[in-house]
Amino acid sequence: MSHAIPMPRALDRTLEAELRRIIDMKTKPPGSLGRLESLALQMGLIQRTTKPRIERPAMIVFAGDHGIAAEGVSPYPQEVTAQMVANFLAGGAAINALSRSVGMTLEVVDAGVASPIPIDKGYERLSLGLGTRNFAHEPAMSRDTAHEGIARGAARVRHHASLGTNVIGFGEMGIANTSAAACLMSRLCALPIDDCVGRGTGLDDRGLAHKRDVLRRALAAHPSGGDAIDTLATFGGFEIAMMTGAYLAAAEARMTILVDGFIATSALLVASKIAPEVLDYCVFAHASNEAGHARMLAHFNAAPLLQLDLRLGEGTGAALALPILRAAVAFVDEMASFDSAGVSNKNDARA
Amino acid sequence: MSHAIPMPRALDRTLEAELRRIIDMKTKPPGSLGRLESLALQMGLIQRTTKPRIERPAMIVFAGDHGIAAEGVSPYPQEVTAQMVANFLAGGAAINALSRSVGMTLEVVDAGVASPIPIDKGYERLSLGLGTRNFAHEPAMSRDTAHEGIARGAARVRHHASLGTNVIGFGEMGIANTSAAACLMSRLCALPIDDCVGRGTGLDDRGLAHKRDVLRRALAAHPSGGDAIDTLATFGGFEIAMMTGAYLAAAEARMTILVDGFIATSALLVASKIAPEVLDYCVFAHASNEAGHARMLAHFNAAPLLQLDLRLGEGTGAALALPILRAAVAFVDEMASFDSAGVSNKNDARA
Repeated sequence: MSHAIPMPRALDRTLEAELRRIIDMKTKPPGSLGRLESLALQMGLIQRTTKPRIERPAMIVFAGDHGIAAEGVSPYPQEVTAQMVANFLAGGAAINALSRSVGMTLEVVDAGVASPIPIDKGYERLSLGLGTRNFAHEPAMSRDTAHEGIARGAARVRHHASLGTNVIGFGEMGIANTSAAACLMSRLCALPIDDCVGRGTGLDDRGLAHKRDVLRRALAAHPSGGDAIDTLATFGGFEIAMMTGAYLAAAEARMTILVDGFIATSALLVASKIAPEVLDYCVFAHASNEAGHARMLAHFNAAPLLQLDLRLGEGTGAALALPILRAAVAFVDEMASFDSAGVSNKNDARA
Repeated sequence: MSHAIPMPRALDRTLEAELRRIIDMKTKPPGSLGRLESLALQMGLIQRTTKPRIERPAMIVFAGDHGIAAEGVSPYPQEVTAQMVANFLAGGAAINALSRSVGMTLEVVDAGVASPIPIDKGYERLSLGLGTRNFAHEPAMSRDTAHEGIARGAARVRHHASLGTNVIGFGEMGIANTSAAACLMSRLCALPIDDCVGRGTGLDDRGLAHKRDVLRRALAAHPSGGDAIDTLATFGGFEIAMMTGAYLAAAEARMTILVDGFIATSALLVASKIAPEVLDYCVFAHASNEAGHARMLAHFNAAPLLQLDLRLGEGTGAALALPILRAAVAFVDEMASFDSAGVSNKNDARA
């Protein structure tokens, strides 16, 4: 199999001075729109225009199962992954309500769910298998499968690019996937596993201690070494592999990328090891309450837009940030300048 | 003149247990939607329904001038207030772009602008005068005028209530109004003026020191005493008086109120001294970068929804929070429950 990995380029900063001038001449004290101003600048640079737009914003939710679930690291049974995919397809999950609320197109991808999905249409069938292998004992997937996941995730993003999407977010569903994400984080950020493990969907203290033990042993069983794709293959997540490719393809297509929570950011860890340029296209949408996410954000030196105590995944935090991007685009497009509005600028009266 | 001050009632908590049960049975781990869950609960209690809705969300921007501007406490000339009102009416200000972006009806009120407004329609003419008096030397307005401002602000809100509005935000424009707000804060929160004064629209260090001196002397010239309405009359702001009445009327009409930044929150300080029940209806939309706002929020023990480094006023922070309220309403209305979706709840498999 040939798997050309998408290769995003660093931002072209040609328009930076012009964009800053346009933003500063709007009828407001300089800098007074705070983060909206830096978002507008970033989106202008990404789109290489002084009139950035949001076109066909899309959310792709990748679902996959994890062999590590057999170790009892989640309080929910593995069948919940398939049940929640059915819930997405029926329109009843949080990401359905939130995507509709903010006006995002929602796509659901079977990246590798273990149980039968009780609804047979309305999603993309890209399954890499009936869940990963249990990385407590063996690598979650082969290196070749990881590459294939990256390619399939990238292909979905290219499909949306062909339909005009220029802002995209990625969400996930997968019982036990905080365990995969924590191990990826520990290895790729060189942090002790205890700094990376949280309660996931709601472990109690005893469950949390057990999860830490399981993951500590699993990390010890797989010595460091190899590149980011080897690490991805070891601790897996078919959905994480596809998100990795999705990030890279979205940056390659010069989309603005809304980065969701703990699992979504773990895939960005992998993607940014492959091509650090991907980060130029990312907006960190929110700070999850999952314990490790704050440290992941610190790794990226990222200040997330929102802090709403979410810890759900599915892309919910990314969806909630879209209206802030809309506002950033709106002020650049619609606000008058001091000159055009006949408003006196600072200290004019003293001049 | 008779000025019956609106008198909001404390929240009726009858539905609290039922709302919590509905929220907890949605297909997500309990609490995992964080602040969206508490917002949904609050809006349900305010509207006395398990299906809260957002109807005809509105933003009222009150503009007024301040005699204290003569003391050189702002780097912008006073005429900017009228120029910015014209900018609002022409659709070119930040609050125009942001209100449109989030889908809010925008109304502009002349609460007492000093310079002629160069456009003669499209706003509510409720002027209490051509700017307040200079509170460095005398009270900004009489107690009777403060009452009249409260009544006029309340009347605008009742108008919107009659059109069906159930979510509302208040913004303001007024050169030097951070000075009025800082003095109100100092007096009503019993804080030293230096804790309340910030750079406003962009004072440099020298300008900030001057503003502090002016306000320290002004506070000393007006001894403490009297009630919140006396304090409001002393340091004024026709727009602040109208916002005070607007908050009280909005709570009385059981609207959800989006609280903007430093000036808007100073009016809430006055309103909450008159009727603390108003706070049950408030959502603190954002933390302004104006220095004193964090301490105001601490006074209310409030955790604002957004922190986007805004320091513009006009209601911009309040407008940006509306999509989060929409998402809160959407998840309660549209999400399936574990039962209805056939999703296994936590630990079902172990039972």
